[in-house]
Amino acid sequence: MRCLIVNPNTSVHMTSSINHTMEELDKGDVSFDVISAEIGPESLESFYEYNLAASGVAYTLKKMDMQIYDGVLLACFGDPGLYGLKESLSCPVVGIAEASLSMSLLLGYKFAIIVSLQKAVPMMINMVHQYGLGQRMAGVFPLNMPVLDLEKDKVSVIEKIRQVSRKAIIQGAETLILGCAGMTGIAKEVEKEMKVPVIDPVSAGFHSLKAIIESKLTTARHGLYEPVPAKRIIGAEGRDSKYFGYF
Amino acid sequence: MRCLIVNPNTSVHMTSSINHTMEELDKGDVSFDVISAEIGPESLESFYEYNLAASGVAYTLKKMDMQIYDGVLLACFGDPGLYGLKESLSCPVVGIAEASLSMSLLLGYKFAIIVSLQKAVPMMINMVHQYGLGQRMAGVFPLNMPVLDLEKDKVSVIEKIRQVSRKAIIQGAETLILGCAGMTGIAKEVEKEMKVPVIDPVSAGFHSLKAIIESKLTTARHGLYEPVPAKRIIGAEGRDSKYFGYF
Amino acid sequence: MRCLIVNPNTSVHMTSSINHTMEELDKGDVSFDVISAEIGPESLESFYEYNLAASGVAYTLKKMDMQIYDGVLLACFGDPGLYGLKESLSCPVVGIAEASLSMSLLLGYKFAIIVSLQKAVPMMINMVHQYGLGQRMAGVFPLNMPVLDLEKDKVSVIEKIRQVSRKAIIQGAETLILGCAGMTGIAKEVEKEMKVPVIDPVSAGFHSLKAIIESKLTTARHGLYEPVPAKRIIGAEGRDSKYFGYF
Amino acid sequence: MRCLIVNPNTSVHMTSSINHTMEELDKGDVSFDVISAEIGPESLESFYEYNLAASGVAYTLKKMDMQIYDGVLLACFGDPGLYGLKESLSCPVVGIAEASLSMSLLLGYKFAIIVSLQKAVPMMINMVHQYGLGQRMAGVFPLNMPVLDLEKDKVSVIEKIRQVSRKAIIQGAETLILGCAGMTGIAKEVEKEMKVPVIDPVSAGFHSLKAIIESKLTTARHGLYEPVPAKRIIGAEGRDSKYFGYF
Amino acid sequence: MRCLIVNPNTSVHMTSSINHTMEELDKGDVSFDVISAEIGPESLESFYEYNLAASGVAYTLKKMDMQIYDGVLLACFGDPGLYGLKESLSCPVVGIAEASLSMSLLLGYKFAIIVSLQKAVPMMINMVHQYGLGQRMAGVFPLNMPVLDLEKDKVSVIEKIRQVSRKAIIQGAETLILGCAGMTGIAKEVEKEMKVPVIDPVSAGFHSLKAIIESKLTTARHGLYEPVPAKRIIGAEGRDSKYFGYF
Amino acid sequence: MRCLIVNPNTSVHMTSSINHTMEELDKGDVSFDVISAEIGPESLESFYEYNLAASGVAYTLKKMDMQIYDGVLLACFGDPGLYGLKESLSCPVVGIAEASLSMSLLLGYKFAIIVSLQKAVPMMINMVHQYGLGQRMAGVFPLNMPVLDLEKDKVSVIEKIRQVSRKAIIQGAETLILGCAGMTGIAKEVEKEMKVPVIDPVSAGFHSLKAIIESKLTTARHGLYEPVPAKRIIGAEGRDSKYFGYF
Repeated sequence: MRCLIVNPNTSVHMTSSINHTMEELDKGDVSFDVISAEIGPESLESFYEYNLAASGVAYTLKKMDMQIYDGVLLACFGDPGLYGLKESLSCPVVGIAEASLSMSLLLGYKFAIIVSLQKAVPMMINMVHQYGLGQRMAGVFPLNMPVLDLEKDKVSVIEKIRQVSRKAIIQGAETLILGCAGMTGIAKEVEKEMKVPVIDPVSAGFHSLKAIIESKLTTARHGLYEPVPAKRIIGAEGRDSKYFGYF
Repeated sequence: MRCLIVNPNTSVHMTSSINHTMEELDKGDVSFDVISAEIGPESLESFYEYNLAASGVAYTLKKMDMQIYDGVLLACFGDPGLYGLKESLSCPVVGIAEASLSMSLLLGYKFAIIVSLQKAVPMMINMVHQYGLGQRMAGVFPLNMPVLDLEKDKVSVIEKIRQVSRKAIIQGAETLILGCAGMTGIAKEVEKEMKVPVIDPVSAGFHSLKAIIESKLTTARHGLYEPVPAKRIIGAEGRDSKYFGYF
Repeated sequence: MRCLIVNPNTSVHMTSSINHTMEELDKGDVSFDVISAEIGPESLESFYEYNLAASGVAYTLKKMDMQIYDGVLLACFGDPGLYGLKESLSCPVVGIAEASLSMSLLLGYKFAIIVSLQKAVPMMINMVHQYGLGQRMAGVFPLNMPVLDLEKDKVSVIEKIRQVSRKAIIQGAETLILGCAGMTGIAKEVEKEMKVPVIDPVSAGFHSLKAIIESKLTTARHGLYEPVPAKRIIGAEGRDSKYFGYF
Repeated sequence: MRCLIVNPNTSVHMTSSINHTMEELDKGDVSFDVISAEIGPESLESFYEYNLAASGVAYTLKKMDMQIYDGVLLACFGDPGLYGLKESLSCPVVGIAEASLSMSLLLGYKFAIIVSLQKAVPMMINMVHQYGLGQRMAGVFPLNMPVLDLEKDKVSVIEKIRQVSRKAIIQGAETLILGCAGMTGIAKEVEKEMKVPVIDPVSAGFHSLKAIIESKLTTARHGLYEPVPAKRIIGAEGRDSKYFGYF
Repeated sequence: MRCLIVNPNTSVHMTSSINHTMEELDKGDVSFDVISAEIGPESLESFYEYNLAASGVAYTLKKMDMQIYDGVLLACFGDPGLYGLKESLSCPVVGIAEASLSMSLLLGYKFAIIVSLQKAVPMMINMVHQYGLGQRMAGVFPLNMPVLDLEKDKVSVIEKIRQVSRKAIIQGAETLILGCAGMTGIAKEVEKEMKVPVIDPVSAGFHSLKAIIESKLTTARHGLYEPVPAKRIIGAEGRDSKYFGYF
Repeated sequence: MRCLIVNPNTSVHMTSSINHTMEELDKGDVSFDVISAEIGPESLESFYEYNLAASGVAYTLKKMDMQIYDGVLLACFGDPGLYGLKESLSCPVVGIAEASLSMSLLLGYKFAIIVSLQKAVPMMINMVHQYGLGQRMAGVFPLNMPVLDLEKDKVSVIEKIRQVSRKAIIQGAETLILGCAGMTGIAKEVEKEMKVPVIDPVSAGFHSLKAIIESKLTTARHGLYEPVPAKRIIGAEGRDSKYFGYF
């Protein structure tokens, strides 16, 4: 079994963190590749950047041989462009946000999401409502640190997350989801002496994807993710010709 | 006052229909320009195409002088890339789907959306939940006609919409929203002898945008649509350099 | 185009404020009349007073020639008796509360309503749930000032609203709605240096109504607002005979 | 213990049916009076009529000595003007709709409401959402008979209700609520050979009110139903002077 | 009329408190028996204990002649095993939690539940969502006292409840429900000088049950509570043979 | 890694089917034991039976050495007694219903549950609301076959499920969940030529549990599933003494 882990931003550092988390996981006999988007913003903190990243990922995957993969994990909390990937690929595609939420449902009633910036609070609330999971949400809690700073000083990031987590628990959180791929690899540190599980989004994403593949299931080909036949792209001539392609 | 109407697909025919609707409207002293995306699919019937279109619109607007506009109308039902545009532009930006829904709330309790294809049914239901308006939805009803066919035979399209509308009314619809920019210009024909208002999305979108501009209001600069400072785009060198720009 | 603005209470001062706001608006070629209810309470702060006002407005409009109007705006936040007016009149009728809410949906995800008294907090929450918009509500925030005091000292009212607004923003508000016709005319003052739009209910109501009229739409004649044939009124003989009339 | 049963319309026939139901009930040692509104429509089938009735009931009760009653039952399904009465009276006030819904919650998971006319379907759905009980609603099912005809031919009304009830049960109803005071007195006939309880609204209303009185409880004096101090009524001079009074 | 009040735990003290409350109530001509479960935990503070109690109550009732009762009240807030009892018994069965909630709906818009321990907060929120009443909930507020301590020092319990209640009222509560059978008998003390009704769960439960019996209604025999034919119990041979019986 | 699969009913046949499914799965290096409850009903089709089974499972597990297991799967759709097990055991415990629902969220927007009997329809709807997943539910669809008959004629069961599934798809289902452990082992047959994934509840349950164990996570020890200290069980003397124990 082989999985593709897609970091939809272009931060080499973040891709390397994701790779590190993947190496540490109990993966059984699954092999994996971690890639970044070839083009796009270095971090994704707005819908505008999500839109650019969604297109950058399409460009990146279009040129690859996707037949060799049994599943794809989209490794940015916020799941940018996820629905489009589900339509386009025949293997299962899972976003780390939806997977973390799904797994949290089995571990506690109310989840909290820890995010880097205040701006992400309404973005995540919006996503949770789109996913129909509002009744299970205790809240979204910001660290007030930019995403790219998360990588710099792990010790103070962990301390800050623990502070914010205690506030979330008082407000009813029973599980804590680290709501950014940039927070991967520290869940066990955060969890120490806490009574609530702390979910690493890359780990939850990978294990959920693996569970789906082992269950021999894939995305519905009918309904929200039904594929649509490829269409001519106007205006792409004279540019990178395969730019806006279809799988 | 001057508005920009953006057709996020690249169908010249649809842009021309939108332009025609705009010319017929009671616009007071508002002037307007209608443009298509420079690059992207000819019609938008999937999330994959929404993602490409969102990026294509960003590319298109990036090169324009946006200071001359008092407001922007995104003229594709489904509002692809809308949140990103709201973040990026300082003038008000309205999507024709959100505007049609907002206006419908003032005309009847439950709305129905008429869409072209079955695939759009779950897409629109998803959007309505994301917008938090599920309690007001009577349903989404498909014509089972591709978007590009809507332009071809207006008489049978109108007849088909009237058939589907009667079904929607039996299921509780009190307002009917024509859920595709490709259906613009026929609302009054559909409405004849019906007891429910039929909402043209381009008209509703334009008049809602104008109401906002006349009220001297614009998008919140805090919260879901808070702008994020521009960031370096990796991987764009050697390509069309302004490709992934920011406003 | 000619609109009727109905202040459903009998406060001459408030009617005059509403008239002042109307005069200041960008109305294009629309003319308007502002009237008060002929009979009823001076301000509307309870359901009991809403009930009396609804009947007082019915009495007042019954004697007027409504054919000359293209639309009616009910200018009390709380929309007292609105559903009955929608049934009774063939032109569009819009309440300033529903219109402010609808417009806010296009400007930010979560709205807050600023109200005069604590009593109005559950009243507005109840109305928002009746309108099916609970997912978009950040909260309702009281000034703890009676409605009739709002007119007296504009400077301190504005300062108080700004204080309460900051609290609302911390609790997630992205738009602020001034939830009382008595607060009309000060939105721009409140908005200064804030990052969120402040909605004047009379302005939002008028511009929304105008948008509907320009879209050539009116209230659904089927469903919640379906008119019912006139019925004999028992007990009205020997009293003011046209009291409980029908349009 | 003494209760006042208020028929908010002016139909003598319906008041007499309500009285008949009351006489048949197991009332313990409770005495009761049944009155009609002195002024207003003969039946209440629209919000416009609800508004007139709410005001007519205020007028009627204003002249009475309300101190002699331990509780008030508002006997029109739709609960017109109920919130205002709850504010105004210190004894408990219960509407037959809210009481029937509350009692149904203890008897089955999903209730259906049987109504006379199609127009009442969205009206009742709106009320159920205002009351926050949408999750428990199987639907609202019309007989397509005017309210005043319900009194005429009991046998065919019962047969018609049984037909409609079977449809409701297929759609998930576990309790059936007769959604009109005009249907009082026939629940036991309807219920025969059915597996679901059929709730008479007058009976459910009275027994719920009695349960509250026996529990020595009354309406909250804080929150939605908080009373507001009496206010001058403008425009009432030279008319029936106590018209718009307060209790 | 005769009712059975079942305390599903085995605390003799709590059964005696319930009996005391019952004796004080205005019961008309209703006689009653109060029993404890024969086997099970002394107090019920977890789902694990709820499960044991549900089975202990089944065992206890199985040996009794249930034909002599007109109704059954399950007297533990949390309603453990309630759905199973509704299926099994032909007379009406009411839980004190569901009854308190139903009655509160008629007295104020938003209820708060006062509970003994923090652990009960998510348990009650879960129950309220299962009952579909989330829109009416202001919150669940803990005393942070074990259930069995509630019996010990009434004066300080009352003072503590009054403290917590004031907090609940600030957060929007309009009615207060004492969310534990161990808090029975003190509602009137708590209520003094408060503007909101305080609901004793045993009193509300009994009066609601009586209202149902007087209305000649019983649990639906179709839907969620439909009875299922008795089935062989495997593994009960050689044990207390009537252990897992059916009614 | 070693998992315990608990069939909470006492049907040897069903336990053997579950064992068969388990043997066929891609389990990596996980070993497993499948057990039945020692005591209780042969199939679980009512809440009454759920209550008995919950207690029977507690009895059964109490005597076992649970330290050797890394996780527990409760293998009855309906998750009877699940919350109590989550409280009692320190390793992760997953119910096949909650796991199937969680996995379905990653495969399609709306799920349908296929159940054996009509009675299970409201039971499952109730469970879905308790789990807060109503927005994702297309419906619950009955085969109208008793659970124990599901084992008898696999060919006609499969054909019947396919029929019912087509109906579910028309009503919006994008994933189909086989809502009974008795339907295990046939998902791939049902899925043939369908465009939607068919979820085997035992397989989804096992793989979800394994994903949690591999993620090194377990149930929250705070909130809804917080354990409560062991308490004396009254009335158990002279009976099987360890009957109502704690882990």
